Amino acid sequence: MLLCDIGNTSYHFLDGEKDYKKSVDSFNPITLTQKVYYISVNKKINQTLEPLQNWIDLAQYINKDSYYETMGIDRIFALQATDNAVVVDAGSAITVDVIKKGVFMGGFIYPGINAISKTYKDISPALDYPFNYEIDLNKLPKNSGDAISYGYLKILHSEVMSYKLPIILTGGDALRLQSLFEDYTIDEALIFKGMKNILIKL
Amino acid sequence: MLLCDIGNTSYHFLDGEKDYKKSVDSFNPITLTQKVYYISVNKKINQTLEPLQNWIDLAQYINKDSYYETMGIDRIFALQATDNAVVVDAGSAITVDVIKKGVFMGGFIYPGINAISKTYKDISPALDYPFNYEIDLNKLPKNSGDAISYGYLKILHSEVMSYKLPIILTGGDALRLQSLFEDYTIDEALIFKGMKNILIKL
Repeated sequence: MLLCDIGNTSYHFLDGEKDYKKSVDSFNPITLTQKVYYISVNKKINQTLEPLQNWIDLAQYINKDSYYETMGIDRIFALQATDNAVVVDAGSAITVDVIKKGVFMGGFIYPGINAISKTYKDISPALDYPFNYEIDLNKLPKNSGDAISYGYLKILHSEVMSYKLPIILTGGDALRLQSLFEDYTIDEALIFKGMKNILIKL
Repeated sequence: MLLCDIGNTSYHFLDGEKDYKKSVDSFNPITLTQKVYYISVNKKINQTLEPLQNWIDLAQYINKDSYYETMGIDRIFALQATDNAVVVDAGSAITVDVIKKGVFMGGFIYPGINAISKTYKDISPALDYPFNYEIDLNKLPKNSGDAISYGYLKILHSEVMSYKLPIILTGGDALRLQSLFEDYTIDEALIFKGMKNILIKL
């Protein structure tokens, strides 16, 4: 069974245990003849895939009423993998979604690590510090580097902790955020897990 | 008595009750012959002012050990105006500083409203929403605009509230933040007030 999570820059495939990526610029989906179950946030590729019989969009099997109209399908599928958790998906943006006893409670969007580093630097060269992920979150900072780290990391931490639910970190920057939390799970394959959970129900 | 708070773009004067600004590009400080008490975050202008006898840098009268080395002198002077408060100075960056019974507890730096709006937009055009300052901060969002507003505003709000101290809003964007808080003071002249408090002690 071939699964595919399509983003703005790549097709991310899972073939059994093995995952690999293909660039959206060079990969031609017509070259695949086997069945592919996919989700996609890429509107252009959605149009390419629609006439292809062997590419099956799993988004159609989701009850979208439980979510909201403009919510990314990747966020929705990550939530299919769990019933009770705060899902922190750290990529170009950090999405934080809360699911409690199987019900989506809502979520918010925080700027990603690279984006916010650029933001501080653009405001002033005097704010161009790398984040200190080992910062003591229980103490107000007294130096510029920590003042920025705290501004970005501490208040994300406080909000995530406030839900008192298991924390799942996923996305490309999950490893960079892990030092903020004591108890958490890192699950890079959360979306694929969600896709499998939907497939089982078909 | 003439006070002046010098930033990166302007000289901000207070003459008695009247305040006005002059651009750093066009104003020549030599043209003033009366005594001016100033603070400045502008390194280039500091050099220009140093030989001028009538321009008196109030920074020299601060005990800097109570603060930290790279802390902006404007933040330090805002704190001279109060003994017990969270000072939220909302400009190109938002600095949040805590002073308790006259002792500086530390502070952090959060991106300013304009900077973060640009950040979300740069991450993806799908995140280009105006902030909703009337958002219900007690409820997790279920639409994209609120998801972004919450990501930026709610967690700033939670952190500021957590200190359980009077809240003082200052800086150019103070008015835009006021709907987040129930009890607060807006004080646009906080830095001048701090300067006066130092002058009284001389």
